[in-house]
Amino acid sequence: MTTDSDARDELIELAADFYDQFAAGSIPEMQLPTRTKSNIEYDEESGVWTYGDRTSTRSANSVRGARKLLKAAYTIEFLANQLDDDRSSTLRELYYLSESWNNDEAQFNSQDESNDLVEDLEVVTGVTREDFHMRPEESGATLMGPLEIREQTRRGEREIHCQEDVGEGGYQIPNNPDMIEFLDHDIDFALAVETGGMRDRLVENGFDEAYDCLVIHLKGQPARATRRITKRIHDELDVPIVVFADGDPWSYRIYGSVAYGSIKSAHLSKYLATPQAKYVGIQPEDIVEYDLPSDPLSDSDINALESELEDPRFQTDYWEEQIELQLDIGKKSEQQSLASRGLDFVTDTYLPERLDAMGVI
Amino acid sequence: MTTDSDARDELIELAADFYDQFAAGSIPEMQLPTRTKSNIEYDEESGVWTYGDRTSTRSANSVRGARKLLKAAYTIEFLANQLDDDRSSTLRELYYLSESWNNDEAQFNSQDESNDLVEDLEVVTGVTREDFHMRPEESGATLMGPLEIREQTRRGEREIHCQEDVGEGGYQIPNNPDMIEFLDHDIDFALAVETGGMRDRLVENGFDEAYDCLVIHLKGQPARATRRITKRIHDELDVPIVVFADGDPWSYRIYGSVAYGSIKSAHLSKYLATPQAKYVGIQPEDIVEYDLPSDPLSDSDINALESELEDPRFQTDYWEEQIELQLDIGKKSEQQSLASRGLDFVTDTYLPERLDAMGVI
Repeated sequence: MTTDSDARDELIELAADFYDQFAAGSIPEMQLPTRTKSNIEYDEESGVWTYGDRTSTRSANSVRGARKLLKAAYTIEFLANQLDDDRSSTLRELYYLSESWNNDEAQFNSQDESNDLVEDLEVVTGVTREDFHMRPEESGATLMGPLEIREQTRRGEREIHCQEDVGEGGYQIPNNPDMIEFLDHDIDFALAVETGGMRDRLVENGFDEAYDCLVIHLKGQPARATRRITKRIHDELDVPIVVFADGDPWSYRIYGSVAYGSIKSAHLSKYLATPQAKYVGIQPEDIVEYDLPSDPLSDSDINALESELEDPRFQTDYWEEQIELQLDIGKKSEQQSLASRGLDFVTDTYLPERLDAMGVI
Repeated sequence: MTTDSDARDELIELAADFYDQFAAGSIPEMQLPTRTKSNIEYDEESGVWTYGDRTSTRSANSVRGARKLLKAAYTIEFLANQLDDDRSSTLRELYYLSESWNNDEAQFNSQDESNDLVEDLEVVTGVTREDFHMRPEESGATLMGPLEIREQTRRGEREIHCQEDVGEGGYQIPNNPDMIEFLDHDIDFALAVETGGMRDRLVENGFDEAYDCLVIHLKGQPARATRRITKRIHDELDVPIVVFADGDPWSYRIYGSVAYGSIKSAHLSKYLATPQAKYVGIQPEDIVEYDLPSDPLSDSDINALESELEDPRFQTDYWEEQIELQLDIGKKSEQQSLASRGLDFVTDTYLPERLDAMGVI
């Protein structure tokens, strides 16, 4: 975690660069890594996918480019003040706030523009949005399991045990999970679960208690806060992370974003991705082996599977075998389809068998 | 709240009706209120919209009808056993579970079919889905404010203060909020907020502390659990409920579902709707008065506004005036657009002015 004053310094340094370029009589510019699929590389050391060496230049040598750097300068001032005042804001608020700026040319024309600019600032400064005190619109993931945390809130510290001090809804993680300190735990492994229905099933069946498992609810495609806390749980508590999702290409992407990071936020992979995360299922193999109720693959499912076969993040023997099998059988199954064997099948049979086979339990 | 054994009795009674009809030599049938817009009536006593007197009949006099009653009988047995065992399940699990039933004809062909059947059982028995122990797929609403609750969980009771014992994410309400008992509170009014960004703004600015306000996060169109707890807070704690949403037709529908209930679940209006809930904004009038950043109305916005003018739930002087004004100015504004006046404008100026004008503070 970057301290507020370090984050502020990085921003001010960027503005100082513009100043120095002006002073030296040169046209100000900003260098950024090219953010496309072709400039994504595997980083051996950290085991995640990140940007390669290709860069693009934002220069003030055109009116359009000059306006971009002007907006960057105003945004840097806003963020630096926000850090000084220990305030925070959402990306949407930043977009609207620009209307109050005293230079019309600096105002954003659309929210995409302000979102992209904040992402650029993340990339260039190496500081995350969270450390600029920019909040997401929605967070929403919850934890349930044998973990005791201390959260630093604006109202003081809160010590919370994620089984004993919470209701059945679990512990709601804050927008910036770096405000959490891990105090104590009894976790053997963490299970990151795609759907709310399955998360509730595991909690009702007491799976977290029976297996000393921390249940992380992904809520579909996980928010940054959810991916960040998942990585911290892995790295700091040294426990295996297992992803449990539906058996379709969209869910494999959910696994991919937890394990490998996404192309759009490859500059954050080292901060958000957990390359050691494993996929428990639903695997295409499970659809056959457990004879699960299934739906036929749609055209867009087939396209998504084929595009995954091309994706460097999925080019492993395991994924190639599973995806080929799925294209072959032409079926997909949801995680809740395990209920066709009864409500306890998932916790009494499926997960114990799979986790044992994977060496997790 | 219906007890488990009462809920079970209602279900068994329905199955007993089928039996008696068979025994008397007549074709079994089930009467249901007609669930269309034309059969929605205003209930003077409760102040909510509910079904009128028109009914439809499900009869076993066709193969299709007979199959429906067979599925109903199997579902009744499943739900009665679930209540006996103190278990619960999701609608999706029920759909998949039917594959394990010993009569192929009783299995559901689609999830819509099982969802509709459970809704039919709610309507006929007068027992809510929650009291059958059917869980939604996702809940997710949170509370933050001066409220102390006791939640009955499967792991025992939890006493939680919704400011002092929670992190910045707030208290996650459980799927069945009737498991909550209100212990103590200091709430002057509850503010039900549409977006996560605004919910976080209010919490960061300490609005809940400064105004003894309970902040309820609606998360867009609110889940049943959120509407239910909102109603209970109003009725049991005798505090005003105020809805704070974007200034567009879709957000007025969110207000409508909190205040008046929806057509699809009009049988639940008395359980879910809070007719005394007021709308604080964003009002079309505010877009003009506070000169808010806005977007032009799209064609679908205009259609939705025109359809609201036809909707009996919006036929009040207030809503007609506001909707006519909005069609006139052709603009919509999000609640976060208040940030164009600075991050504190919403809590220092807008909400105090509006709530004072409404007589809430």
